[in-house]
Formats: sequence, structure tokens, C-alpha cells
Amino acid sequence: MSAGGSFRTLRLLVMVSLCVFISFSAAAASSPAQEKDSAMENIVTEKKAEESHRQDSADLLIFILLLTLTILTIWLFKHRRFRFLHETGLAMIYGLIVGVILRYVVQVPRDASVVSTNCFVNASPATLLVNVSGKFYEYTLKGEISANEVNDVKDNEMLRKVTFDPEVFFNILLPPIIFHAGYSLKRRHFFRNMGSILAYAFVGTVISCFVIGLLMYGCVVLMKQLGQMGEDFFFTDCLFFGAIVSATDPVTVLAIFHELQVDVDLYALLFGESVLNDAVAVVLSSSIVAYQPQGDNSHTFEVMALLKSFGMFLGVFSGSFSLGVATGIVTALISFLFTKLRDFQLLETALFFLMSWSTFLLAEACGFTGVVAVLFCGITQAHYTFNNLSPESQDRTKQLFELLNFLAENFIFSYMGLTLFTFQNHIFNPMFIVGAFLAVFVGRAANIYPLSFLLNLGRRNKIRSNFQHMMMFAGLRGAMTFALSIRDTATYARQMMFSTNLLVVFFTVWVCGGGTTQMLSCQRIRYAVSDLQIHCSSLYRVGVDSDQDNSVNGSERRSTKQESAWLFRIWYNFDHNYLKPILTHSGPPLTSTLPPCCDPLARFLTSPQAYENECQLKDDDSDLILTDGDISLTYGDITVSTDATGAHTSGRHASDDLDRELAYGDNELVMRGTRLVLPMDDSEPPFTDHLRM
Amino acid sequence: MSAGGSFRTLRLLVMVSLCVFISFSAAAASSPAQEKDSAMENIVTEKKAEESHRQDSADLLIFILLLTLTILTIWLFKHRRFRFLHETGLAMIYGLIVGVILRYVVQVPRDASVVSTNCFVNASPATLLVNVSGKFYEYTLKGEISANEVNDVKDNEMLRKVTFDPEVFFNILLPPIIFHAGYSLKRRHFFRNMGSILAYAFVGTVISCFVIGLLMYGCVVLMKQLGQMGEDFFFTDCLFFGAIVSATDPVTVLAIFHELQVDVDLYALLFGESVLNDAVAVVLSSSIVAYQPQGDNSHTFEVMALLKSFGMFLGVFSGSFSLGVATGIVTALISFLFTKLRDFQLLETALFFLMSWSTFLLAEACGFTGVVAVLFCGITQAHYTFNNLSPESQDRTKQLFELLNFLAENFIFSYMGLTLFTFQNHIFNPMFIVGAFLAVFVGRAANIYPLSFLLNLGRRNKIRSNFQHMMMFAGLRGAMTFALSIRDTATYARQMMFSTNLLVVFFTVWVCGGGTTQMLSCQRIRYAVSDLQIHCSSLYRVGVDSDQDNSVNGSERRSTKQESAWLFRIWYNFDHNYLKPILTHSGPPLTSTLPPCCDPLARFLTSPQAYENECQLKDDDSDLILTDGDISLTYGDITVSTDATGAHTSGRHASDDLDRELAYGDNELVMRGTRLVLPMDDSEPPFTDHLRM
Repeated sequence: MSAGGSFRTLRLLVMVSLCVFISFSAAAASSPAQEKDSAMENIVTEKKAEESHRQDSADLLIFILLLTLTILTIWLFKHRRFRFLHETGLAMIYGLIVGVILRYVVQVPRDASVVSTNCFVNASPATLLVNVSGKFYEYTLKGEISANEVNDVKDNEMLRKVTFDPEVFFNILLPPIIFHAGYSLKRRHFFRNMGSILAYAFVGTVISCFVIGLLMYGCVVLMKQLGQMGEDFFFTDCLFFGAIVSATDPVTVLAIFHELQVDVDLYALLFGESVLNDAVAVVLSSSIVAYQPQGDNSHTFEVMALLKSFGMFLGVFSGSFSLGVATGIVTALISFLFTKLRDFQLLETALFFLMSWSTFLLAEACGFTGVVAVLFCGITQAHYTFNNLSPESQDRTKQLFELLNFLAENFIFSYMGLTLFTFQNHIFNPMFIVGAFLAVFVGRAANIYPLSFLLNLGRRNKIRSNFQHMMMFAGLRGAMTFALSIRDTATYARQMMFSTNLLVVFFTVWVCGGGTTQMLSCQRIRYAVSDLQIHCSSLYRVGVDSDQDNSVNGSERRSTKQESAWLFRIWYNFDHNYLKPILTHSGPPLTSTLPPCCDPLARFLTSPQAYENECQLKDDDSDLILTDGDISLTYGDITVSTDATGAHTSGRHASDDLDRELAYGDNELVMRGTRLVLPMDDSEPPFTDHLRM
Repeated sequence: MSAGGSFRTLRLLVMVSLCVFISFSAAAASSPAQEKDSAMENIVTEKKAEESHRQDSADLLIFILLLTLTILTIWLFKHRRFRFLHETGLAMIYGLIVGVILRYVVQVPRDASVVSTNCFVNASPATLLVNVSGKFYEYTLKGEISANEVNDVKDNEMLRKVTFDPEVFFNILLPPIIFHAGYSLKRRHFFRNMGSILAYAFVGTVISCFVIGLLMYGCVVLMKQLGQMGEDFFFTDCLFFGAIVSATDPVTVLAIFHELQVDVDLYALLFGESVLNDAVAVVLSSSIVAYQPQGDNSHTFEVMALLKSFGMFLGVFSGSFSLGVATGIVTALISFLFTKLRDFQLLETALFFLMSWSTFLLAEACGFTGVVAVLFCGITQAHYTFNNLSPESQDRTKQLFELLNFLAENFIFSYMGLTLFTFQNHIFNPMFIVGAFLAVFVGRAANIYPLSFLLNLGRRNKIRSNFQHMMMFAGLRGAMTFALSIRDTATYARQMMFSTNLLVVFFTVWVCGGGTTQMLSCQRIRYAVSDLQIHCSSLYRVGVDSDQDNSVNGSERRSTKQESAWLFRIWYNFDHNYLKPILTHSGPPLTSTLPPCCDPLARFLTSPQAYENECQLKDDDSDLILTDGDISLTYGDITVSTDATGAHTSGRHASDDLDRELAYGDNELVMRGTRLVLPMDDSEPPFTDHLRM
């Protein structure tokens, strides 16, 4: 059966791929046939709109079938435990193949539907009314095209058709990806390493941006002297390049980490950094674009413009941050107040979805960055709102955003592959490309190593050198870099950046992504993997997102009170004592944490359930997995406290909770998660620890 | 707590509604301020694009907040068991309110971004390149506007901004609604009443279309003689009106039926008819538009043109039908062959979603009707693919499409409310409106009563007169009528139709929808409702879609072998013996159903699981709900056969299965669903039946 099954599978794959090309060529062939037909009739406009709609459908269909093909192949890979190529890398390969076919195989006759005209308009309005022999037609502005593109537009309409509006990436595809990242970022290990993550994400990204920018400027100056550079390439362009290429996206690496159960701290550092540096890179790049000195000579250095850019960075970032957090808190409040909403899971899920989406729209409407707002909204939702949802809605929302993330991510990567051949204005300059690879490498090194050294001065739980090498290696570039560089490809400099960035993404995803397993063993980073475990995880990890962090390393257990970061400690106490009781039904009642003078207020704000829950250990950062004997259900982030340990803690204070959680949390994990996790060789039997308490 | 809770709730509602208006006015106010700013700078185009993007975000935000508000209010209604206003009716009311505000309260200065120009173009190309002092700008065709609209475009840009491209409804919002309808149409009662449903949907819709068309033509002729009709209104326009207004959408009525557990046959008839007549109305209306006699005088009667239209109707309908079914079957085959895909629910769900979406795109790309293809794809998916999915994916797909349906439906209805005030070219003609209401009423009557009479001649289980009155009453018009009439509002006739249709929708949704409970008791249609039941259903019906049909009426049980329709019987045998074994893992092995000569083929096609399952009763039409003692999980459509009845049937033939299913299916339902269903007074205790067998 197995051999026959895989034979059938292959046959089907071939069938599906045939489908892609047949349907595509049908779509391509339908154009000219339709044209003759429509020439005979009067209603030209209607026919044309219909035809263009058909073409759009066919184009989108290509992508959908590409995604389908990717899914089927991924499944084969997963089934065969083939770890050298991640789904995103695969999506790129399929995109490349279709791109080659579109470019070189399919020949479409010159399209007559593009007309160039010289109009007597002194501006370029958003809406244009054209009077064609008495009839009015409405046209909307799509954008400016450079003079050398004009001929391309006329020549190869078909290739232009499969090119999406770049804003689609920013407004439709990125938000679910970023939200999902934020929504998955609800980990004790994240908050424990918060200081280091913030340092890597903020300081590190800025360092990386400027190091890359300076190196590229050197490269550009050299090229100019060698006569290799055709047009202008300013320092701000170099900095912009540095900013957009600093957004790391180690989705491939993290998928393998998750599968191999690699060290949780390393996982948290990489994941946290990559999530937050996306936000930093977006705002940084828009601030660099906004750097606009006064006067005609717009590419000189000016302190005022720099300060303005810096102010803009702070303003946009903090604005987006507060907007995201605010919407998250409003959603938490709604779900907290409308407790009976839990009976109607559909309404609950819909509300959650709409509120999260409105964050994006609100931020964009206010002039902030929607993607950044959505990220912080996701983190807030995971931290507060999630706890107020009914278990079904928790599953539903997780699954919904998981699906959206999966589709959007693979779409972007397959589009990336396609673009390498269908984009019309590639400028591949070998010297620039070599310089860029070097700069990206140096920039990443300048981010990781010095910062790790500084951070290690303050950390008890050091970031070891093999972890540093791994982080260096995991500096993959992905969706964010692509979306930022395709957003504006009007000038020579931007086109060159775009082409180079594509190559950087391809190289890092295929080479670094593919070599993760080798790198892990080369760096002797231990991981706990067995066939049984993979099998278990695929069976039991239903609806649990990809960073469950339930592997237990020996080093974990040594963390004690002194070891936890002071930042985390302050945050934890504030969150546990005040925010959680106000926004969720868990945590101690406010009456016990606020000073006595605030008693009436505390009474008003505390939910009646908080008193009932008081005797329970309801802590949502501990991420336990409940695998009950008979039910194969996994509650990702719900701590169900039914054991004696939990019941004992009722009278204690928050800081004790924290200690206990830090010291013993993982042991409980081992206890409850025994079916999932194989204890490591250096770990003591979990029960001894537990009983000692 | 309850009083305090509802007070808080109300306060929050006020807060949220304030939000809507504040954010809206902020968005509205931002335009002029931004304009001054941009005038100072050079990069006008970029600024303009940004501004337009902001405005778009703000517009979309209005709708998102409207939906949020709707959800919160619906929840209040559901919580208070207030049945007079359904969520769709509510969404319309909120839409109306915002429409009034946009129209009369907010004043936006005349926008300078629209420029009218006389270009020397002899056609209206899809893409226009405009040369503005050396720079090229690309414009895309949005559509033709009539001469009298030109001033509106310039005057009230803001109102135009909140107007969506009508194609959005057809290409984005309708498909999930229609797919969900098809995907929920997996009911024994549907297949049992298949003949009647097809009659109502096909014959009935055509009757209704022509009756309404003729009546409206009479009305139009009268109006012309009275001088009330300003411009042309042809007979084809009248027929078109008849076609689009014949698509019923009794979502409100069905929601109440579901809640009140009204007779399942009535439910199946109404639901099945409304799902299928949408498809008929779409294809019918496009065929009427395509009716185009040769020569100049394009509004005379011509047999050839009629035949061409009729051929087109058949071609498009059967094409869309076969495309939808084909994609459904391909998906079923993939999920059947890639059995190990079940281990990766995310991939499975994504694949299902993509394949269903590609149906739509494929149909549109081939020139068929995507909505119709999606409907039949949904039915096929529910019937075959669904059975091959893992239980988690079954839940996931159901929940996903439930959510999409919910959002899209409420969006359309709130947009409908908005359009009443923001649409610029309403033509409300009192005489036409009165005529239309009359015609709609007569058309519905001419559909239901004669057909019911004819059907009753053949049916053993008669459609009683109170059922007929209820079906007559439940002829609500909704999303499909709206989407079809907003699609083209270029001519005078179409504008008048659109305005009239809006009123028809409002009236039927509010009056007929709101009066359903009264009508039910007036018609003495019994229903089983109790507080306990509602409570139970909200608790246990997780992931089960809205037509679970698990109420048991006394009349149901009397159905015997002779009573089932011959159409159903033929279909059931073919499906059970050949299709199910090929496409799913259930059903008898093909080796036992095909003649012996086909043995090798049968062996090749039969899944190994089929032999294992042979001794099980795995019938997926019986829609059982498993409510195990401790787990509050509901498997909507999975029959888990653990009882003795199932084991006994192993050696029987398919027709026995059918009899048993028809005769005893409901009893098993009662047995397993005792926690959900209160036995009716005239039903015998379920156990007696069961033991007797």
C-alpha cells in the first residue's frame, strides 16, 4: 500500500501540475479569440471589462494552483521527514518555474488595449474622466511609470497582468502574518528574555541598518569611480537598503527548531527578535524615506532633517504601538464585560477578528503603520483577550490566524519566485550584489556578537557562543524585506535594491534554511527528537501554534529568583497585580493588590470570578499542555490547575507565584506532558523536584 | 450582577458607537488638512496615493466598526431572546443610520482631485497612459458613467468613496456565502425532498421571473401612458427585474426555524429552494441580458435570439454545474488518495479552502458563473470530501466558512442600509414601487401554490397548505438580489430597479423576517422550543452548522420505503454503490457492487479501509450528533457507529441500508441526541423502536 500510495500520489501531483499549465494556457489563449468576437459587437467596454475580469481570475488561479501544488509537495516532504527544504523555499521554486514559463514559453501578441495619450492636464489627479466621443469613462490613477517603462507596458501586458499591486502585500498579505506572529508570542520564555530580545530588535536592527548602509555607500562610491553605476544612488538610498534588509524572518529555521525541540531560550530569542525587528525595520525605512533636507539639494546632510526623521521614527513607532495595545485592551475589555458572549462562539470569533482588523485600518487611517499596530495588538490579544475567550473560540481564532498566516506566507514566497522572471525592470549588478551579500553578513555579525557580549555582562543565563553563531546563521530574510522593497520600484536605485534583495532572500532561505539541521549539529546544540515524538506531536498538537516550548532542557531548571531579569520582574508584578485582574478573569482580586484607600474602585473593577478563581493557580504564561488519558485535545495556553501544587499556592503573594513558576514551572510541564517530551539525559526525574517542594 | 452587567454593556455599546463616529469624522477631517500640507511639497503623486489609501482605510474602518456594533447588539438580542429582529435586519438599520449621517451631517468641501478632460482617444482602453509634462501616469478603466453623473462625481467625492466597486460583491462577498450554503446542504431531508426542491428552484423561479416580468411590463406601459416614465424601459428590462427579484434568501426565517426546531421537511424545502434558486436567478438574469436581436432595433422579439439566450442559459448553468462538481470530486480524490494528509490539519484545511476558491476562479476564467460553480462545489465537498477529512479539519472548515459567511452576509446587509442614502442615482417612482411589490407577491404565489398542487399529486408526504402559506411568506429577498441589481446601474431602468429592489429587500427582511414567529403560530406549525433546549444547543452545538435537523417530529417516523421519492432512490443507490466507495473511505467495497467482470478495476479503485469499514455502518447522510457523557464535543456529520444496530447491517445490501435509514434513522437520532431534543408528545419512547428491531 505504501509504495502504491506514493505512486498514486506522484501521479496526482503530475496531474495537478498539468492542470496549472493547461488552465494557464487556456487563459492566455482566450484573449485573442475573445478580441475578434468583441470587435463585431457594439458593447466594447463591457466586453473589455469582462475580459479583463476573466484574465484576472486566470492569473489568480495560477497562484491558487501553485499554492495547492506547494501544499501537496510539502505534505510529501513532511511525510518523508525531509527537512532540507521548507515550504517557503518550495513555494519559491514553484514560483520560479512558473515565472520561467510565463517569460520564455508563453508568447502573447502585442496587446492593443493600452493607449498612450497626451492629455492637457496639468496635474495627475486620482480620478480622471475621459470624454470619448460623448461618452464619459472613469479612470483611476494606478501610479507613475518611468519613461523607459512605457514601452514595456505596451509590449508585455501579460507579464504586467500577473504583477500585483505592491500595496496588496502591505495591506492584505502582511497583516495576518504579523498578527499571527504577535498572537503566538505569548511565552514565558519570551518575557524572561525580554531585555535581550528588545536589545537585539531595537539596538541591533539600527546597528545593522547603519553598518549595511555605510558598507553599501562605500560599495556605491567604488562603483561610481569604476564607472559601473549608471544613475544616482544616494546615501539615503543605501541607508534605506540597510533598513529593509535588516528585517529577519527565520520562519524556516523556527519550523525546524520546533520540530527538533531545540533549546527554548534560543527559540525565544530568535523568534522574539524576528517579530520585533520587522516592526523596527518598517518604521526605520519610512523614517529614512522621510529624511528630506530643505532646499534644492536634497541629498546633503542636515541636522534638522535628521532630527525630524528621528522624531518621526519615535512618533510613528510609539503611535502604532499605543494604537495596537489600545485596541487589544478594548477587545479584552469587551470580552471581559460581555461574558455571556462566550455562549456564541461565532460572534466571539467574529468580534475578535474584526477588532484585530480594525487596528490595522485605524492605524493606517491615522497615518501610523498598520503592520506595527497589528503586531502589538496581537501580543496584547494573546496576553489578555485570549484568556477571556471560550475554549472553542481560543481554538477557532488560533486556527483561523494560523491558516491565514500559512496562506499569505506561501503566497508571498511563491510570488517572490515568480517575480524573479516576470518583473520587468531588474537591474542585476554583480558588484552591487557581492557588496550586498558581504554587507548583510557583516551587518548581522555587528548586530549579534557585540550585543551578545554586552548582554552577557548582565545575564546570569549567558548566551553561549554556539547560540550566537546559530543566531548569526539564522538571519534569514523573507516576506517583510520583499514587501518593503517591492513597494517602490520607480527609481534606478530602488530597482537595483529590489533585484539584489530577491537574491538575498533566495540565498538565505535555501542555503541557511536548508542547512539548519547541519548547523545545529555542527554547533552541538542539542535537541530532543525521535520518531515517536514527531508522531506524537503531529497527533496531539492540534490547534497549538508552532512555538509550544515544551521541550525541557537541563539548563532551564537552574533558573532561580536572582536569574530572572529585573525588567521582567517589574513587568510581571505590575501585570499580575493590576492588569490581569482588570482585563481578565484571572489573577488576584484587586482588593488584595491595591492599597486600602482604593478599595471601592478595586471592588468595582474586579470581576466576581476573580474571587472564585482566587484559590486557583490560573497563570497563563506557563503554557502547559494538558494531555489527558483519553481525550486527544491540547489546550495550548490554558493552564488547568487540578494538581496539589496549584491548590497550595492560594494564599501566597504574586512574587512567590513568580518564583515558583520560574523554578518549578517546567517540572510541572514534564509531569503533565510526559507523553510528548522525552526527558533529557541530564535532567533529574521530575517527580523528585516536585515532591521536594 | 445581571443588572450591573447589562448597564455596563449598554455603556460600552454607546462607547463603541461613539468610536465609529469619532473615527469617521477624523477620517473625514483629515482630507483637507493633508491637502494643504502636500501642496508645499514636490512629491504630489506619492502624497495623493497615501492620502487616498488613508481615506480607503477610514472607509473600510467604518464598515468594520459597523459590523462590530452589529455583533454586540446581536449578542444582546440573542441573550435576551429577542426574535423580532435578525442580525441582518439589524445590520441594515445601522447601515441606514450611518448612511444618513454621511449624507446629511458630514460636509466635505468640493474635491479637486477629479479632473474632466477631453482626450483624443477613439476608444476606451483598459489601460491609459497619460503624459503630464514629461511624466507618464498609468490609469485603469473603472467604467462608463452617464453624462448626468459627471457632476455628481465632481461634487460628492466622499459619498463615492464609501461606494464599493459592485464587482466586490460578486467576486469577494457572495462566494463564501453561497459556498457555505452548499456546504451546509448535506441533509437527508434535502435529498429526500430533492424532486420538490428542484421543481421549486427551477420551474418555480422561471415562473416567478416571467410572471413578475409580465406584470412589470404592464405597469411600465401604464406608466408610459400616464407620462410617469421618463426614459426607455424595455420588456427585457422587466424580465431582468423578474429574474433578479426571484432569488429568495430566507436567512432570517431559517435562523428562527432553526432556533424553534420547526418541521424538518419545511426547513429542507425552504433552504434547498433558496440555495438553488440563487443559482437559477444568476444564470437566468445573465441570459436575459445576453438576449440581443440582430440589427439596429434591439428590443424587438426574435426567435433566434431567444433560442440563443435559452442555449446560453443551459450552457452556462450546466458548465458551472459540472465545473463545480468536478472540482469537488478532484478535492475528494486528493483527500482520498493523500490519506496521510490527515495528520497535518493545517495543510488539509488550506488545501480544501484553496480548491474551493479555485472553483470560483476557474469558472470565471472560463466564462461560466463562479457563484453557481461554487454552490455545487460546496454540495459535492459536503457529500464526499467532508467524509475524508480528519475530524479536526471537518470542524475547521465548517467554522471557517461559517465565519466568512457571517461576516460577508452582515457586511452586505449593512452596506445595503448605507446605500439607501449614499447611492447618488436613486429613482424612486411610487407607481413602479407599488407595482413591483404587487408583482413580487403575485410571482411568489404563482411559484408556490400551483407547483405545490402539482407536487402533491406525486408526493405521499403532502406539502400541507399551512406549509405552503409559510413558504409563500418566507420569500425574503436578500444578498443575491442586491448584488445582482447593484452590478449595473448605468441606465435609467437599472437605477429604478435598484432603488425598488432595495425597498423590497428592506420590507421583506424587516416585516416578513420579523413576523416569522407570529406567522408560525398563526399557521399552527408546531415547533419544539424550551429554555432548556436553547441553552443546551448553545452549549453543545459547537461547530455544527445551523441546520442540524435534529428535531424529531412524529410525522417523520412514518416515512417508509414507498414514501421516498423515486428520484432520491435512484440517486441514493448509485451514490451509495459507486460514488461513495470511489471517492470516500465509506460505503460497500466496489467488488461487491460492480458486476464480476469489472473485478480487477473494482479492486484497484476500492480503498483498503473500505473493507475494514465494511462491517460498520458508515453512513454520512444521517447527521447524527454524538453527545457523549463527558466530552462536550459535537461531531456534526460523522456517524460513529458503536451501537448494535450498526454492527448488524454488515451483510446487507444498499437498498436495505436505505430502508433502515429512512425508517430508523431518526430514532437513532433521538437515542443519541437525548440531551438535545425534547421528545414530542406524539412520539413513542425511542427505546421501544430500537429494541423492536
